[in-house]
Amino acid sequence: MTEIVGIHSVNLALAAGSGIQLRIRQGKLNRRQEAIIGLAEQMGCPVVFEAIEGDEIAHQGVALEVVPPRFQTEQELGSLLKVARDNWLFLILDGVTDPRNFGACLRSAASFGVHGVIVPKDHAAPLNDAAIKTASGGASLTRVFQVVNLARTIDSLKKAGIWIVGTLPEDSEPLPKIDLKGNIALVMGAEDVGLRQKTQDRCDFLAHIPMDYADLSLNVSVAAGICLYEVQKQRSA
Amino acid sequence: MTEIVGIHSVNLALAAGSGIQLRIRQGKLNRRQEAIIGLAEQMGCPVVFEAIEGDEIAHQGVALEVVPPRFQTEQELGSLLKVARDNWLFLILDGVTDPRNFGACLRSAASFGVHGVIVPKDHAAPLNDAAIKTASGGASLTRVFQVVNLARTIDSLKKAGIWIVGTLPEDSEPLPKIDLKGNIALVMGAEDVGLRQKTQDRCDFLAHIPMDYADLSLNVSVAAGICLYEVQKQRSA
Repeated sequence: MTEIVGIHSVNLALAAGSGIQLRIRQGKLNRRQEAIIGLAEQMGCPVVFEAIEGDEIAHQGVALEVVPPRFQTEQELGSLLKVARDNWLFLILDGVTDPRNFGACLRSAASFGVHGVIVPKDHAAPLNDAAIKTASGGASLTRVFQVVNLARTIDSLKKAGIWIVGTLPEDSEPLPKIDLKGNIALVMGAEDVGLRQKTQDRCDFLAHIPMDYADLSLNVSVAAGICLYEVQKQRSA
Repeated sequence: MTEIVGIHSVNLALAAGSGIQLRIRQGKLNRRQEAIIGLAEQMGCPVVFEAIEGDEIAHQGVALEVVPPRFQTEQELGSLLKVARDNWLFLILDGVTDPRNFGACLRSAASFGVHGVIVPKDHAAPLNDAAIKTASGGASLTRVFQVVNLARTIDSLKKAGIWIVGTLPEDSEPLPKIDLKGNIALVMGAEDVGLRQKTQDRCDFLAHIPMDYADLSLNVSVAAGICLYEVQKQRSA
């Protein structure tokens, strides 16, 4: 059973139609809990009143059993790409193996409205409890596609009119100089070795995050968050 | 013993004077390993040649025993603040209790050239192995001040001419609208409950990171990285 807790996350998961059963702690309800019950009823999600274990500050008196997050397939990605858009935003993780880093990326992806996260089948973190917990609801709110051959998928994205922006520690354009307003897939490399050469070769743009000490580099989930922030900033300007 | 590995991190820690002994794996040396040996000699750090355990891709044939990272005191912060600058950048973590989030914040702080990270004594992550490992060298390269009374320290920073910028999930100015070019201390709140009221009350500015789904919020180390990126961007513009 996958359960998410807390007003913010439960609200989003309910709105996304992922709710199976909403639990509300017994006692006097506050305004936000009442609003969540209203949303559950609207979405056809059953509500029960019972004690909720754990820290009240963390769960805020609400817990939602959700459809377990699962990897979607290359075929499902193909169907999604048939939708015509002019602001596609994908996040490709090329060799991110740490489940907590993966989860933090999913959380940022959900917060910044990414249309899909794409990971390869091999050399990639599982969508396990550690990833789902760190994603803090994000794993139930973002499509995560698992593909067998990442190079082939990148080629499909390019054919669908999406620009591929790879990130490197140095020797590339500063990120803010790149136009991120159109259809974009950001590619983040592995924690230790960065982007694989065959991934790099397929990128339309290579960018780095300007820093005082680029040598040290950033945690991959931090770097992904910064890139998504830059996209958001350019698109809302 | 605290040891850091990898060309980038070892280089920075050596340059910061934190090296106790440099280990280089036996065999033919590459250009970057030779440069590191030169730097060690320059910094008076002994060099030994021996096998290095673990993954070659991660350690890249170099390992540096460093002075263990330690918390600095309020008095040391006071001495630092006597230096006249017009671009102080501090990162205050108000209740970040997860060592890995703390470590990722230290890594970003080092990469973006933060002058000091400030944490309270209570309700804060320890500077333990998990934090130091996640910081990936950053804990040896950034001053981390542990203070007894965070409110009092914020008051001292304000007296030293530093603007306090607190971050909130919503109901505040968008981060890019705030002038971050002068003397700044960014304040990040706890993973679950955000900024404490008495910290919020002391802030000169309250800012949020513009997102599509602000409800979900971001991992605190991702949010800190984004704020530091925005500072860097404004200062280099």
